[in-house]
Amino acid sequence: MKRPLAVVAFGGNALLRSGDKGTYDEQLANVRATCAEVCHLVSRGYDIIIGHGNGPQVGNALLRHEAGKRVFGLEAMPMDFCGAETQGSIAYMIETGMEQALRAEGIDRDVVSLVTRVEVAADDPMFKTPTKPVGPYYTKEEVEGLEGVYKEDPRGRGWRKVVASPVPVRISNIGLVGRLAREGYIVVTVGGGGIPVINAGGAMKGVEAVIDKDLASALAAIETGADELYILTDVPKVYVNFRKPDEKALNTMTVAEAKKYLAEGQFAEGSMAPKVRAGIRFIEGGGRKCIITEAGQLSNPACGTHILP
Amino acid sequence: MKRPLAVVAFGGNALLRSGDKGTYDEQLANVRATCAEVCHLVSRGYDIIIGHGNGPQVGNALLRHEAGKRVFGLEAMPMDFCGAETQGSIAYMIETGMEQALRAEGIDRDVVSLVTRVEVAADDPMFKTPTKPVGPYYTKEEVEGLEGVYKEDPRGRGWRKVVASPVPVRISNIGLVGRLAREGYIVVTVGGGGIPVINAGGAMKGVEAVIDKDLASALAAIETGADELYILTDVPKVYVNFRKPDEKALNTMTVAEAKKYLAEGQFAEGSMAPKVRAGIRFIEGGGRKCIITEAGQLSNPACGTHILP
Repeated sequence: MKRPLAVVAFGGNALLRSGDKGTYDEQLANVRATCAEVCHLVSRGYDIIIGHGNGPQVGNALLRHEAGKRVFGLEAMPMDFCGAETQGSIAYMIETGMEQALRAEGIDRDVVSLVTRVEVAADDPMFKTPTKPVGPYYTKEEVEGLEGVYKEDPRGRGWRKVVASPVPVRISNIGLVGRLAREGYIVVTVGGGGIPVINAGGAMKGVEAVIDKDLASALAAIETGADELYILTDVPKVYVNFRKPDEKALNTMTVAEAKKYLAEGQFAEGSMAPKVRAGIRFIEGGGRKCIITEAGQLSNPACGTHILP
Repeated sequence: MKRPLAVVAFGGNALLRSGDKGTYDEQLANVRATCAEVCHLVSRGYDIIIGHGNGPQVGNALLRHEAGKRVFGLEAMPMDFCGAETQGSIAYMIETGMEQALRAEGIDRDVVSLVTRVEVAADDPMFKTPTKPVGPYYTKEEVEGLEGVYKEDPRGRGWRKVVASPVPVRISNIGLVGRLAREGYIVVTVGGGGIPVINAGGAMKGVEAVIDKDLASALAAIETGADELYILTDVPKVYVNFRKPDEKALNTMTVAEAKKYLAEGQFAEGSMAPKVRAGIRFIEGGGRKCIITEAGQLSNPACGTHILP
């Protein structure tokens, strides 16, 4: 019998937490813990594709490139290059952590990680209104000589580059990703939402942008015909009236209900709202079920909030 | 008819040359030029696996991590992590350059890059005598608090970490690499010689080391049953009495001849000697032919120096 296929998306902050010092051992321990939870899905009989974020990691990469310029006079590379770096380093840590977790469970499955470019439309309207702050803070004077759009930080820490968050439209080698997952490989792809590229006269060209990793994972799930999309976060379920007296955890919501809640502003932008939108995208693209939950719940088949058609 | 399979190894300095400023555009132009030459092998009917070095790139990565620590207080990650970063960024550039080169030739082949760990023996004797200098220069005082082995630079630039260059023994997912190459994918693997790991009680653990990329590519060629191994360098052939009045270019040499020349010290350590050793390794591992040449010769089937059984 064909095993169900699940795409599992987790944040870069599952590896590098905001309170952490960020040591290598800490990151490896975090990734190992997350992988041990994802292993529950393997034990429950799923084929698995992993999509992961890179927010804190690409932030650090951009800072290191800036620092390398200041201290050693090295060229600072742009964001697509830095994103590719984090795909390598995070995939390496996931391979290490996942192998250890599989081994601890006595499961014999191989892990393979693909460097992944994700095409976005060159005329995506988001490029006209970049909103995502990335990289180091600069003074107003420093910013004047730099390429790109810079905005002043509302908390007065200086000026920072802002980039667009365009919609993912095509994932490199996604057919192969699906095939390998169906063969039993645990496949790591769309790291950091994928390295953003545009089609420039037939050739793919990197752009400075951030693709939402949940949306990229939803597209990966649609394109591979996955049965379920798991979006991992730091709460067990999605809530309405979150942190209010009448807060209510949702066990299920239909796409129509999810859209209604979004319109009401029930879900915070930059937090739960993009996750719910990614879930809607998956279901509207033919998916059966999107589960939003925390990693620690994955042993329970009834876990999380289910977005359904 | 089954196409012949070639593993092509090229240095990190094919992308980031010593005289370059190291801008992103420069690196992309360099990679594009090298990929256009490798395309000749595709046109000549080969299936292709690409192994590449990362010397200048991982050097820069280590400097950026050190600079990030000094300027922003970020944790500096160890060498295996930095190597994984360069696998991501270099593979991304190769995918971009190779796609452009294939497209220019009207060839429809996909490129796929795998994050690749390479196992070395925990008791490899090289770990006892690390010789490979990596990363930033430090003062004698700074070095005293640091982990690892440090040696004074003979040209007085300071103290530098030295790491071992152990022999590669196993490449992650190499069976899959061979299968995909046979299907027509151009597969990028063993970047920088692979991320070095040891088997620590059944679990793979990263170590600070540099695996010779030609030796790793030779192992990849053996394990995938490749017909030919191309080792690209900056001269069209291998020479005896190099740069002497009786300098002689070699069209072929047998493994026995190659060993004799090595014993005579005909090939420079850190330059041609490791390439010839990798060629010997491939032929002794069952390979048919190793070709050492420069990228610009690849359109000519008779190019380079052939190492034969």
